[in-house]
Amino acid sequence: MAKTEEIKAEVMELGKRARAAARVMATLNTQQKNDALTSMAEALVANSERILAASEKDMEAATGRGIGSSLIDRLMLNSVRIKEMAEGLFDVAVLADPVGEIVKGWRVSNGLEIRQVRVPLGVIGIIYEARPNVTVDASGLCIKSGNAIILRGGSMAHNSNLALTKVIADAVADAGLPRDAIQAVTNPSREAANELMRLNHFLDLLVPRGGPELIHTVVSHATVPVLWAGAGNCHIYVDESADLDMAQRIVINAKCQRPSVCNAAETLLVHRAVADEFLPRVAADFIAQEVTIIGDETTRKLVPQALEATEKDWYTEYLELKIAVRVIDSVQEAIDHINKYGTMHSEAIVTRDHGSARKFTEEVDAAAVYVNASTRFTDGGQFGLGAEIGISTQKLHARGPMGLTALTSTKYVIEGTGQIRS
Amino acid sequence: MAKTEEIKAEVMELGKRARAAARVMATLNTQQKNDALTSMAEALVANSERILAASEKDMEAATGRGIGSSLIDRLMLNSVRIKEMAEGLFDVAVLADPVGEIVKGWRVSNGLEIRQVRVPLGVIGIIYEARPNVTVDASGLCIKSGNAIILRGGSMAHNSNLALTKVIADAVADAGLPRDAIQAVTNPSREAANELMRLNHFLDLLVPRGGPELIHTVVSHATVPVLWAGAGNCHIYVDESADLDMAQRIVINAKCQRPSVCNAAETLLVHRAVADEFLPRVAADFIAQEVTIIGDETTRKLVPQALEATEKDWYTEYLELKIAVRVIDSVQEAIDHINKYGTMHSEAIVTRDHGSARKFTEEVDAAAVYVNASTRFTDGGQFGLGAEIGISTQKLHARGPMGLTALTSTKYVIEGTGQIRS
Repeated sequence: MAKTEEIKAEVMELGKRARAAARVMATLNTQQKNDALTSMAEALVANSERILAASEKDMEAATGRGIGSSLIDRLMLNSVRIKEMAEGLFDVAVLADPVGEIVKGWRVSNGLEIRQVRVPLGVIGIIYEARPNVTVDASGLCIKSGNAIILRGGSMAHNSNLALTKVIADAVADAGLPRDAIQAVTNPSREAANELMRLNHFLDLLVPRGGPELIHTVVSHATVPVLWAGAGNCHIYVDESADLDMAQRIVINAKCQRPSVCNAAETLLVHRAVADEFLPRVAADFIAQEVTIIGDETTRKLVPQALEATEKDWYTEYLELKIAVRVIDSVQEAIDHINKYGTMHSEAIVTRDHGSARKFTEEVDAAAVYVNASTRFTDGGQFGLGAEIGISTQKLHARGPMGLTALTSTKYVIEGTGQIRS
Repeated sequence: MAKTEEIKAEVMELGKRARAAARVMATLNTQQKNDALTSMAEALVANSERILAASEKDMEAATGRGIGSSLIDRLMLNSVRIKEMAEGLFDVAVLADPVGEIVKGWRVSNGLEIRQVRVPLGVIGIIYEARPNVTVDASGLCIKSGNAIILRGGSMAHNSNLALTKVIADAVADAGLPRDAIQAVTNPSREAANELMRLNHFLDLLVPRGGPELIHTVVSHATVPVLWAGAGNCHIYVDESADLDMAQRIVINAKCQRPSVCNAAETLLVHRAVADEFLPRVAADFIAQEVTIIGDETTRKLVPQALEATEKDWYTEYLELKIAVRVIDSVQEAIDHINKYGTMHSEAIVTRDHGSARKFTEEVDAAAVYVNASTRFTDGGQFGLGAEIGISTQKLHARGPMGLTALTSTKYVIEGTGQIRS
């Protein structure tokens, strides 16, 4: 109990300091924020040894606990990765500053001049897993957007995160910004994370970055506003009118180019009229690329190598070289399948028919809906939005790739000459 | 336990039906939605008797329970109020349709054409107190923005709400729209409301409309996204450079014109340099209008009628003819007071100094910040945004008066010619 109170006090203290820092951050001009980003980048490189020593401790502990190689790879820092983090900060410095944008402005009949102005959100919390680069990437985006950040990284990367946080917070202070603009929760317990989820009045936004379990926990327990980057159970629908060569290229790209990411395709829907011709062709490519095919009955007739699909497969985000395939009878059936089983991330139709394209883009309920292109383009960089803090699959505030603008709010500024309401 | 399961099943069934209706609502054109609004308005007037009979039951029950007169007044329906609700629907029909707006659009280097398009949120839940007009107002806004709505009104207005819901849902069906676009939770228990707060996957947004207690309950318990219209502890700061005649008009208007609403002023901050001259003048007006003055020490010296202010007064939204008054030393002190005690609603400075105006509008953290105007203008109608569902004091998604746009999301539509990612 005493310990719980202590953790509560620690997290609330972080919140208070962050709020005070956020007040200052909101008044900075772009040059000051860019100078801080440059200072952070330079400090990372200058302090490489110290950061790598901390990372070494995390790696030893992880190896000792028999952690798998893909997790170890995420966790690992080396001098190349430190340079990449620094370059990421320079990239953020180059982006346009969202703060101060006049989103709208008008004058009403009594002469009041109303402007809707973009402002920082204030204090942003982030809970993430064992990827130390998130410590730097998220901090950079928050600094550029004029916010203060409270970081709560995975316990496996504890030493790396504390070292990185110290280096970049010092650098921010060296540049004349409040040191508390970047803080980390030093207590590695789950209780500390839970406190962060309920830090109303101090936290304006909490961003969970990680797997479905983390997001589920945050959504269920948080009382502060949350923006989540959810799963991507993405579909490609090959219409009866599709250019089948194009469809083949798109399907193979969406599934195989990088299967472990959220905008990779997980299910292929094929119109019955072209299934005979299309499925054996695309299946040959899949097999050549070692993709396991899971199919409905019709698919299994056309592709003998296909395994049997169950209801569960339509819901599954495989994130590996595996694809579910279903033959359907109409664009309507494709839309219904996607709206039922999908996660509202990225969905594509391949078609030559204008009406099908229009119906699909209008009726599919997702962050990004594609006509004749791979779902793999759902990404802040590919969209030309610059660095992103994730891809939102929620509908409130931000949907799709979340760039700097997602880290802002607006306020109305109203200037008058003594107007009163009658 | 069996009852809990039943309530759960009922609310989930509402959610499923609403989701199906929302799919259709999203595809409607503006004319179809406007026809439905007209049909609703006409049905209200045509069914006045039936609605008034239901209202009569609620009134009898409320009178029997000895409910206070202001609550009774909110609860009461009569033929004038029914006509007002109908007129409100015609007003919404005249508003521009937010759905289909292309918020942004551009082409990236590989030729992909990206459009960010405004779309309905989907299913909107609303929990409100004993104001039957909200049943109609909220439904009208949801229909116009292409959403389905699930209504959960206060139990005191149960009969009125059910009668109104039946009339407008029938009218929507008569106009060819899905009847389930407007549904009400018929179970009046608190458990039913709690189920609505956790109806993830079916509810895209929950709007609590009511007092701080309701909002607190929803924010603490909801796992679905929430937009709240919070309290307004609004301030007027009279700067040392203020035109004192203008300041007096603004202060009196902001406090007295309609003291029971959220954009009325609750605290007056006066710069020490003008306190001697200003406070006795404005106090005379206050006293003439029967406003109780609660002051700090300096105020009490200048205004003998003032009662003593405690720390709690600075936090209080009186919502009546009562004002807290504090004398301060600088615009910075005014900003700090407001950011500490305020609720981020509407804040005003009266000044002739450009630097003070700029500093105040930049540093005060609120939905609406005024220079030389009354806080009473924070309102969708006064801003020229048309009807509103409330005034958001949160920072995510919508801040300030929430019109139709607050009930929408966006999706990216990306059209290509076979682009794949390399």
